[in-house]
Amino acid sequence: MAASDQAYMARALELARKGIYSTHPNPRVGCVIVRDGQVVGEGWHVRAGEPHAEVHALRQAGELARGATAYVTLEPCSHHGRTPPCADALVAAGVGRVVAAMQDPNPQVAGRGLKRLADAGIAVEGGVLEAEARALNAGFIKRMEQGLPFVRVKLAMSLDGRTAMASGESQWITGQAARSAVQRLRARASVVLTGADTVLTDAARLTVRADELGLDPELTALAISRPPLRVLVDGGLRVPLSAPFFQSGPALVATASDSSPDAYAGHELLALPGANGHVDLRKLLQELASRGVNEVLVEAGPRLAGAFAQAGLVDEYQIFIAAKFLGSSARPLLDWPLARMAEAQELTIVEMRAVGDDWRVIAIPRATP
Amino acid sequence: MAASDQAYMARALELARKGIYSTHPNPRVGCVIVRDGQVVGEGWHVRAGEPHAEVHALRQAGELARGATAYVTLEPCSHHGRTPPCADALVAAGVGRVVAAMQDPNPQVAGRGLKRLADAGIAVEGGVLEAEARALNAGFIKRMEQGLPFVRVKLAMSLDGRTAMASGESQWITGQAARSAVQRLRARASVVLTGADTVLTDAARLTVRADELGLDPELTALAISRPPLRVLVDGGLRVPLSAPFFQSGPALVATASDSSPDAYAGHELLALPGANGHVDLRKLLQELASRGVNEVLVEAGPRLAGAFAQAGLVDEYQIFIAAKFLGSSARPLLDWPLARMAEAQELTIVEMRAVGDDWRVIAIPRATP
Repeated sequence: MAASDQAYMARALELARKGIYSTHPNPRVGCVIVRDGQVVGEGWHVRAGEPHAEVHALRQAGELARGATAYVTLEPCSHHGRTPPCADALVAAGVGRVVAAMQDPNPQVAGRGLKRLADAGIAVEGGVLEAEARALNAGFIKRMEQGLPFVRVKLAMSLDGRTAMASGESQWITGQAARSAVQRLRARASVVLTGADTVLTDAARLTVRADELGLDPELTALAISRPPLRVLVDGGLRVPLSAPFFQSGPALVATASDSSPDAYAGHELLALPGANGHVDLRKLLQELASRGVNEVLVEAGPRLAGAFAQAGLVDEYQIFIAAKFLGSSARPLLDWPLARMAEAQELTIVEMRAVGDDWRVIAIPRATP
Repeated sequence: MAASDQAYMARALELARKGIYSTHPNPRVGCVIVRDGQVVGEGWHVRAGEPHAEVHALRQAGELARGATAYVTLEPCSHHGRTPPCADALVAAGVGRVVAAMQDPNPQVAGRGLKRLADAGIAVEGGVLEAEARALNAGFIKRMEQGLPFVRVKLAMSLDGRTAMASGESQWITGQAARSAVQRLRARASVVLTGADTVLTDAARLTVRADELGLDPELTALAISRPPLRVLVDGGLRVPLSAPFFQSGPALVATASDSSPDAYAGHELLALPGANGHVDLRKLLQELASRGVNEVLVEAGPRLAGAFAQAGLVDEYQIFIAAKFLGSSARPLLDWPLARMAEAQELTIVEMRAVGDDWRVIAIPRATP
């Protein structure tokens, strides 16, 4: 693998990232076409139903694509979806070589796109910057491989691990930069999921607000054009339809009761009874994945976030830490009673950095041995 | 101020830092003598009672000191202590210019050393890298200015802000690199202070161990040659003399009872009764400062650490964070019940970085408005 292969693939990943707020349920994909050391075409997938990255890049390259090398962050598709197969388009354009960062994660199609290219006499390589490519589409990959979305839990706490005073007083623990970062987490997610406690206590709406995203106009427009579905876990249907959450657009409500009303003022009701009168969270995630949901952002209080944690359903924690102590009578980060040190959830901290006056920790649960 | 002044002062500070484990009760001081753009002498203060930094540097420079510039990280002393005044030595050596990072923090002597130099016709400048120089001797400065030592509170917690399971199970939350960093915090302190809970529960000894410091042989030898005084806050004299803490060398015990035994098996007893049967922590710190203690490291459980926090006696928190969740029934970071958000202790986080598998946060309390 040449160093230049990595450089062009890095550029293709940069292009792919432009779709972070808009491609789902599709993956984010970028493509760069290079001929004689010159980039002659670039493209990225913008939105489902619109052309794939390869098509944009091939259009830009035109005749210069003949004999060129195409760098794609994901194996070109070989099936007819809403658009024709990209592998066919690459063959038709006469490219000489295709470098893919990773195979299609769908086990039933993985490798077919590359095989079609190879069968047409095109030199094919894979695995260039694969880890970066996989990270960009962790949700899409998990849905394809496991039938579950990637679950990111956002938490905001004081440095002593507290989320609110015992009274419930909690608003604005963190500052504007952190709130803007949370807005971007919402915008990239297919679903923003919360619980009745949060909606009742904080009058939370869980919407994406253009002026708080802190993005350039192009990305802001893309983010706003495809807002995440808002999902409320409300086993006992405690949240009234007059709540700001319901007034802010259509939502999906997961309830634990089979005898729920059919009509819910334009909102969808989903009965997923689990143990102890709670919603079955795993079934909810499976249902969301079956609807094409790649990434779920959980923004909930200690009880619901703790329930996801206890059920082993969390892929990533993003913890915003405010530089203050709220004291020992304040509310905990997660309702998750553990008795012995051996039961502790081990984590890998992958990032810890300043976000305005606050700090952000990104931590991944480690598998329990 | 020339850029080269800063560069030479940075070197003088680097030398001064070599004394971090050994100079107290004296400040850490470094000196560089420069003639015609060449460093002709370097020195640093090693231990109280031994020559000051300027003397070492002047000896190395010899006749080359005449007309040279001396960079010192602290105003040269003008009084006869255990060694003759350094201002006199600089005058006698015939240096042409003296650059000091900061004045002597003792309000009663500040400026006298520089004045003596100026009176002898030497060009004098101050304030070069003053912030760095002050940070290096924050404890000495606070003792001189306020009659109190600098109090650094070390805490170890899980990412969800817990220090131990409800059962008390707690050992080894953090890994070897963090423990080594704590050893260095102990070694640089004049006093390591703990409470009865920690000594009883963890069989803590609070000693400095050469093989865990992670320092080079020279600094290790210096650190071991001048171990910190171990201070136990034990209002009710609950810790038996058979505890490992008492078996590991002489200690000072602060108690709340005036009717304490005189003899305590070679350990010193200090009666400092405060409110509610507790030890008066402020009086204890004042007593320690009067004995020449610059830096106190508090390594205690949530109760005692919380008491220092509530009394506003903490200058710096060093929080070691283990990448795990201990859950919501585990013990809090600080016993510090606060009812309203307005009472929250605001902090400034000055550093957050990886230490082995753990993370370290350094946070400074902000003055309450």
